[in-house]
Amino acid sequence: MPHRKFFSYPFRVYIEDTDAGGIVYHANHIKFMERTRTEWLRSQGIDHYLIGDKGRDLTATNENLPDSSFSFVVHELQISYHQPALMDDLLIVTIEAVSCGAASFVLLQRIERDDVVSGVTKRVIVASGKVKLACLNDDLKPRRLPSNIRALIQTALQD
Amino acid sequence: MPHRKFFSYPFRVYIEDTDAGGIVYHANHIKFMERTRTEWLRSQGIDHYLIGDKGRDLTATNENLPDSSFSFVVHELQISYHQPALMDDLLIVTIEAVSCGAASFVLLQRIERDDVVSGVTKRVIVASGKVKLACLNDDLKPRRLPSNIRALIQTALQD
Amino acid sequence: MPHRKFFSYPFRVYIEDTDAGGIVYHANHIKFMERTRTEWLRSQGIDHYLIGDKGRDLTATNENLPDSSFSFVVHELQISYHQPALMDDLLIVTIEAVSCGAASFVLLQRIERDDVVSGVTKRVIVASGKVKLACLNDDLKPRRLPSNIRALIQTALQD
Amino acid sequence: MPHRKFFSYPFRVYIEDTDAGGIVYHANHIKFMERTRTEWLRSQGIDHYLIGDKGRDLTATNENLPDSSFSFVVHELQISYHQPALMDDLLIVTIEAVSCGAASFVLLQRIERDDVVSGVTKRVIVASGKVKLACLNDDLKPRRLPSNIRALIQTALQD
Repeated sequence: MPHRKFFSYPFRVYIEDTDAGGIVYHANHIKFMERTRTEWLRSQGIDHYLIGDKGRDLTATNENLPDSSFSFVVHELQISYHQPALMDDLLIVTIEAVSCGAASFVLLQRIERDDVVSGVTKRVIVASGKVKLACLNDDLKPRRLPSNIRALIQTALQD
Repeated sequence: MPHRKFFSYPFRVYIEDTDAGGIVYHANHIKFMERTRTEWLRSQGIDHYLIGDKGRDLTATNENLPDSSFSFVVHELQISYHQPALMDDLLIVTIEAVSCGAASFVLLQRIERDDVVSGVTKRVIVASGKVKLACLNDDLKPRRLPSNIRALIQTALQD
Repeated sequence: MPHRKFFSYPFRVYIEDTDAGGIVYHANHIKFMERTRTEWLRSQGIDHYLIGDKGRDLTATNENLPDSSFSFVVHELQISYHQPALMDDLLIVTIEAVSCGAASFVLLQRIERDDVVSGVTKRVIVASGKVKLACLNDDLKPRRLPSNIRALIQTALQD
Repeated sequence: MPHRKFFSYPFRVYIEDTDAGGIVYHANHIKFMERTRTEWLRSQGIDHYLIGDKGRDLTATNENLPDSSFSFVVHELQISYHQPALMDDLLIVTIEAVSCGAASFVLLQRIERDDVVSGVTKRVIVASGKVKLACLNDDLKPRRLPSNIRALIQTALQD
C-alpha cells in the first residue's frame, strides 16, 4: 500500500461555503483541504503553516525548527468531485502521504461525510485529490524540506 | 443591563481568511459572526439557518418547527474593528440579544481573543458590532418570527 | 448637500458571490465596496490600496507619493441591505465623501443596479453604507493622511 | 493541434484575493477560471451559467435554449501554479477546448499576465489547468449537452 491515512479533521459547512446552486462552491473544497494541512502541522507542533507571515514576530517559533526559514506553496493540485456537499454538512477531511522528494511532497486528501440512510451510517466520499506542496525559502526559491517535516512524511509513508 | 452574552463559539483563523496586509480581511469578520449565529441556532435544535435551501428535502425538519417556512436575512449590520486578527488565532465569537420585534431582532456580536502577555492571559476584543436580522417567508416577504425563536431571544433579553 | 458621488465602478456578480439562498452572500457586498475604493485610488494614480504588501518591491511606487509609507484599514463599517443582489447582476458601486479628519476619513458607498421593468430602466439601491478608513504607518500606528489623498477627499467634499 | 484558445477575459486582483503570504490564495485561481467560463457563455448569449438558480424566474431564459433545463458542475479539475499572482495584477484568463463528450466536456484554462521587464512586455503564465464539466438536469442527473453548447465546443475543437 503506497500511502496511508494519517490525519483527519472535521469542518462544518456554513452558508458562506455554498453557492446559488445550493451546494458547496467547487473552489471551497480546496480551502477545506488546506485547513486540514494546517491542522495537521499544528498537531505536530508546527504552528505556522505559512512561516514568514506578516504581523507577528516569528523568531521564537523559528528557533524551534531545525531549519529556520521556509514556507509551503501548492505547486499542483488535482481534485475530483464525487458528491455535492451541502449546507450544515459535517465534512471529515483526511490526509495520506503519497511521496516525498527533496524539496516537495505529495499528499492525497479526501473530503468525506457520514450519511445516514435507513438508520445505517455510511461514509461517502464527497471529493478527493492530490496536492503537491513545494518548500520555499524567504526569497521564494525552492529549498530542502526541513528535517522534522521530512521525517513526519516519511514515517507516514512507511506505516 | 440591556443585553447579555448567551452564546459563544470558537473559530480558528486560516490562511484563506487573511489578506496581503497579513491580517484577517475585514469582510471575513462578518463570516465568523454568521457562523456563530448558525451554531447558536443549531445548539437550539434549529438545524438550518437558511430554511429553504436547495439540494435537500427539508420537510422533516420543518415539521419540528412551530411555523413551517421561514428564513433570516441580514437587514443591517454595523461593525467596529479594534485589533487585527492574525493567522492561527483562535477567535471566540459571542452573541448577546439587544432587542426583539415582531418580524426582526437585533444581536450584539463580539469577536474576542485570549492574548498571553508576560504569562498573563488577557481577553481582547478584535471586533464588535450589531446585526439586525429580518424573518422572511418563502416569498421573501417579512413574516412574524417563529414562536420558538422569539422565545429564545426574549429569554436572553430577560436574563 | 454634505457629500457628493465622485466615483463609480461596475462589477459583475458571479456564482462564487452567491449562497444557497440564491442571492449574494451578505459579507460579499463589503468586498464590492472595497474593490471600488481600490479602483478609485487607482484612477488617481495610487496603484496600491495596501501600500506595504509583500511580494513586490514598492520603493518606486513610494517615491511617487508625497509621504512614503502608509496603508488604510477599515475602522468602522455600517451597511443596510435593501434589495437582494443576484447571479449575473451588473452592480454599480459608488463612492461619496462624507468627512475628512487628520488621520481618517468617511465614505458613503452605494451598491446599485439598473432593473428593467416593463421596458423602463429603473436604478435601484441594493445596499448602502458608510465606511471609516484610518491611515496607518508601517508600524500599524495612526498617521496623518498623505496630502494627495487628503486633497482628493476635500475636493470631493467641496463639490 | 488538439485545441485552440477561443476566449479570454481580464480580471483585476483585489486585496480580497490575496493571503498573508502576499500572493493570490491558491483556491482563488479557480474562481477566476469559473468567472471566465461564465463570461464565455454570456458572450454566446447564454446568460446563466447555473441554470436553475433560485431567486429569479428563469422561464424566459429557458425558452431561448434548445433544451430547457440544465446546469454545469465541475467533475474534475487539475491546476499547476507557475508564478505567484499579486495584488493589483491584471490577469487574463483563457479558455481552449480539449474534448467534447455526450454529457461532458473538457476545457484547458490558462491564467496569464503581461510583465514588463526592462521596457519589454512579456506574457507569463501564472497558472494553467484542465476542467471537466458535466451537464446535469434538474434532478442533478447527467444529461446530454444542449445542442447549442455542443456546437460551440465542437467549433472550437475544429478551429
